[in-house]
Amino acid sequence: MIRTPYLLFLGDAPDQLAAKVAQGIADWRPENVVGQFRMPNCKADVAAKDMTLAEAYEAGARTLVVGVANRGGVISEAWIDVLCEALEIGYDVASGLHNLLRDEKRVKATSQRAGRTLYDVRVPTVSYPIANGVKRSGKRCLAVGTDCSVGKMYTGLAMDAEMRSRGMKSTFRPTGQTGILIIGNGIPLDAVVADFMAGAVEWLTPDNEPDHWDHIEGQGSLYHISYSGVTLALIHGGQPDALILAHEPTRTHLRGLPDHSLPSLEALRDTALPLARLANPDCEVAGISINTKALGEDEALRLCEETEARMGLPCVDPFRHGAGRLVDALAGI
Amino acid sequence: MIRTPYLLFLGDAPDQLAAKVAQGIADWRPENVVGQFRMPNCKADVAAKDMTLAEAYEAGARTLVVGVANRGGVISEAWIDVLCEALEIGYDVASGLHNLLRDEKRVKATSQRAGRTLYDVRVPTVSYPIANGVKRSGKRCLAVGTDCSVGKMYTGLAMDAEMRSRGMKSTFRPTGQTGILIIGNGIPLDAVVADFMAGAVEWLTPDNEPDHWDHIEGQGSLYHISYSGVTLALIHGGQPDALILAHEPTRTHLRGLPDHSLPSLEALRDTALPLARLANPDCEVAGISINTKALGEDEALRLCEETEARMGLPCVDPFRHGAGRLVDALAGI
Repeated sequence: MIRTPYLLFLGDAPDQLAAKVAQGIADWRPENVVGQFRMPNCKADVAAKDMTLAEAYEAGARTLVVGVANRGGVISEAWIDVLCEALEIGYDVASGLHNLLRDEKRVKATSQRAGRTLYDVRVPTVSYPIANGVKRSGKRCLAVGTDCSVGKMYTGLAMDAEMRSRGMKSTFRPTGQTGILIIGNGIPLDAVVADFMAGAVEWLTPDNEPDHWDHIEGQGSLYHISYSGVTLALIHGGQPDALILAHEPTRTHLRGLPDHSLPSLEALRDTALPLARLANPDCEVAGISINTKALGEDEALRLCEETEARMGLPCVDPFRHGAGRLVDALAGI
Repeated sequence: MIRTPYLLFLGDAPDQLAAKVAQGIADWRPENVVGQFRMPNCKADVAAKDMTLAEAYEAGARTLVVGVANRGGVISEAWIDVLCEALEIGYDVASGLHNLLRDEKRVKATSQRAGRTLYDVRVPTVSYPIANGVKRSGKRCLAVGTDCSVGKMYTGLAMDAEMRSRGMKSTFRPTGQTGILIIGNGIPLDAVVADFMAGAVEWLTPDNEPDHWDHIEGQGSLYHISYSGVTLALIHGGQPDALILAHEPTRTHLRGLPDHSLPSLEALRDTALPLARLANPDCEVAGISINTKALGEDEALRLCEETEARMGLPCVDPFRHGAGRLVDALAGI
């Protein structure tokens, strides 16, 4: 478990998009954010208070989270200066970058000398078991997508937030590096060894109270041939009681696969549900989540209404319109 | 590529089953076997010539292959003595054990001093790419099972052997440690990191001549929740032109999952084929392979006939009755 609260490191982000990890934390766990640390030429801003390392530590921050993508596959000397200073002050440092903190000699040595912890959240740290398929208590919801990167994580975070605001028992269960940094724990599923994928998901979502919901972060798509195996392991290890179908309506082909078109929502439903029922015979498709970011307000509402009528399932953009109707749809499950 | 031919190390195998890796090599690549090395209390025999390390080296053997399971999760001192002697003589040593040769200090040091290579075939040695889904030339056949361990590897090996005996262009493509030791190369798919599973399979089965067949070794089952993700990655990375349905008729539940029953062959067909067509729209189910080892001759033949009539597909036990009819079934594909 990464120590909270955080100081968000935005570095020298060239634009707002480069800081999307920091934005995700600020959007979904503002209570974990003491402030943001920006270098002189930083072009991103997640609307947190600008603070020095010393000020934020004084204000309670205990982990400096790298909330920005690095450039050119290297961690610059300027970044390393900041990370080392943070370690000296008493911060742990957490990162989801491909370049690992532990591989940076100066950062590693400073963390050891200062007795602080480096969290490279892309790297599994647990020996996960082989999945045993035994039914677990409590309820689980999983978003499955017509493609990668269509809003599955935001759907789960929004449903979790809605449930907690209603006083319901709910936990978001991260399976990727952004989710792990937002919540402070989880499994980096795409980096787990093949035989242990489903077991890692079982480990992530243990027995729980009968009225507790785990919102498991989705990954990949059954239709995306590069990552479909990860998705199926998530479905079978997660043994969800409810599936949410997730879609982005402007995608012209599967991400990174120009020769592969997206499935219809009907096809996704008909593929995912029978597979999910192998692990949990009671699984149902509960609703549809559409990422309408690229659409105007009228167009977004019209698409959701049309899709809802066509599919006979509640359909919303949970980030734009709230996840209330998706949470309502879980009531009978 | 592991150097051939081999001397098969049977160690102190307590029974014949413990030496099933050596048996697989002797069954499928007898031309790679110079002899077998047995310790005094060995209870297994793969009907190769008993030889000392020196005799077999003299006869041309270049790799000592550990063809036997170890006991109690340790590699004994008695084994280590033999492995080190082999390295001193000039052998490489190859193993698919969970306990790695490289983790045995004396074996590691001896291999380095002697300038020889240790092959721990459970451990990936290649940085596999992310799958790109681009259609490759040549043909591919993959066995998919109603469960794990139902004869998928033997089906592929038998079809490959039949094709080569007919003078057809054919390659067996191993995806597990036994297959890798039999052939001398391949990918240990169950040990590959999740994101790279499908890419590893693409790497394993590259472009080939239009009339060349790859027989890709199957793994797991879409219905086995512990390993289904590995199976789907194999289907999507392999982009097979033909599927063979593989089944063991006496199994009462999925291996290791007492609460999960096996699917029917019809259900397996209807699940696997649409998923396979996402990667290769021309994929067809070509035949059925039944592992009849537990049945008498009459019973085995009757089951194959009944299944063939019911499913409308050629159905054989390729190990017992030959793979000719399965190879015939690929003619139109």
